[in-house]
Amino acid sequence: VNAPERAPLPREEFVERLRREGEARYHDRHRYHVLMHEGKLTRGQLQQWVLNRYYYQTRIPIKDAIVVSKSEDPAFRRMWIRRIHEHDGETEGEGGLALWLRLAEGVGLDREEVASCRSVLPGVRFACDAYVDLVRTRSLLEAVASSLTEFFAPDIMTKRVLAWEKHYPWVSPEMLAYFRGRVTRARRDSAEAIEFAVQNAITYELQERCVAALIRKTEILWQLLDSVYAAYIDPAWGRSGPR
Amino acid sequence: VNAPERAPLPREEFVERLRREGEARYHDRHRYHVLMHEGKLTRGQLQQWVLNRYYYQTRIPIKDAIVVSKSEDPAFRRMWIRRIHEHDGETEGEGGLALWLRLAEGVGLDREEVASCRSVLPGVRFACDAYVDLVRTRSLLEAVASSLTEFFAPDIMTKRVLAWEKHYPWVSPEMLAYFRGRVTRARRDSAEAIEFAVQNAITYELQERCVAALIRKTEILWQLLDSVYAAYIDPAWGRSGPR
Repeated sequence: VNAPERAPLPREEFVERLRREGEARYHDRHRYHVLMHEGKLTRGQLQQWVLNRYYYQTRIPIKDAIVVSKSEDPAFRRMWIRRIHEHDGETEGEGGLALWLRLAEGVGLDREEVASCRSVLPGVRFACDAYVDLVRTRSLLEAVASSLTEFFAPDIMTKRVLAWEKHYPWVSPEMLAYFRGRVTRARRDSAEAIEFAVQNAITYELQERCVAALIRKTEILWQLLDSVYAAYIDPAWGRSGPR
Repeated sequence: VNAPERAPLPREEFVERLRREGEARYHDRHRYHVLMHEGKLTRGQLQQWVLNRYYYQTRIPIKDAIVVSKSEDPAFRRMWIRRIHEHDGETEGEGGLALWLRLAEGVGLDREEVASCRSVLPGVRFACDAYVDLVRTRSLLEAVASSLTEFFAPDIMTKRVLAWEKHYPWVSPEMLAYFRGRVTRARRDSAEAIEFAVQNAITYELQERCVAALIRKTEILWQLLDSVYAAYIDPAWGRSGPR
């Protein structure tokens, strides 16, 4: 016999559940970020984070275009398409991807090397590709829910700008424009996504799927940092034999 | 043994090949359109074309978002995303889909009935879904090449506006705004798509794939009209027994 269907959580409880599950796993707790924000990364370690994270940045407009393609609603598409413009810019040289490449130059990397993505770690690539795949294969609702890590982004961005200005003064403050811009945009974007999730997760099962998609997304962000940590902070990790 | 690889066609020959193969199969030659442009459709037959073709219109921004998601180039994405805006509008009530719903009202249909797509013929739905599937599963180059039916759109649009004004004077001329707007936009869109195909189809085999994708697209547009013809002009088609 089937158990009686569980009623959906009230709006506030559902939002609180998403916030709790996401916050507990958010990558601001990862030791790579802890070291970064304590000023303990070397120049090379900071560079490698910027270089590898760029691959993640390049996946964002692609996954957002997939999100747009999954919607039957022109109003939703109009709202979500703004995210693509924000990464690609309205004209050449604008937008989040261009700002990230300026950041790469700001930390002393070769712009073309970063833009080519040829030195991205395999584990970073797998994790970022898994995000695109998640968005492609799951429902629109789950795809939107997976974006809700943005809910926690404003805090980490604010912390990051302060930490970089203090600990890595050799990076020109104007290079941090991407992080600064994200504070406001992530707030607006996550508010829209939360509203969509609340309106569309009309059963307990759908709410659970949203939570699961968000957790998977936190795992993707976490894995990205694990890969960079293993390669550039504790490279003995990947070797056979005694450490 | 493998035959020696055939050299790619020079630019002009490739473009001419696309034009020839597309033109020979373009749906302006379909008897539904011939009857339409000769003023021989009844009000009901004109309505059913508008209603069923709306489903095709709704697939366009979806397939265009998939095209955007297949590109790694922000400049390409910026160019192509304009097509989504043109169908969805920059604000509520604007754009190609809204204009088509006005056209639907203009021919005496119920707007909500059309917008719901619930009366769309199965064969029309299959053909339009096959277009989205083609774009999803083939390469970016083939997806772009499949859009090249637009190359032939300006002529049919011009012909259509004149024919409707002459033969169906009960449709207010202002309802034809969608067709009028398409003349200029299809010219610009197809010029961009041709340029992309020429730049990226760098082998004879890739050129052949472009031609094949364009031919498949003409078959999709043709099937749409075959379905509407079978249902509303010659409904005995689908019946068993003697005609």
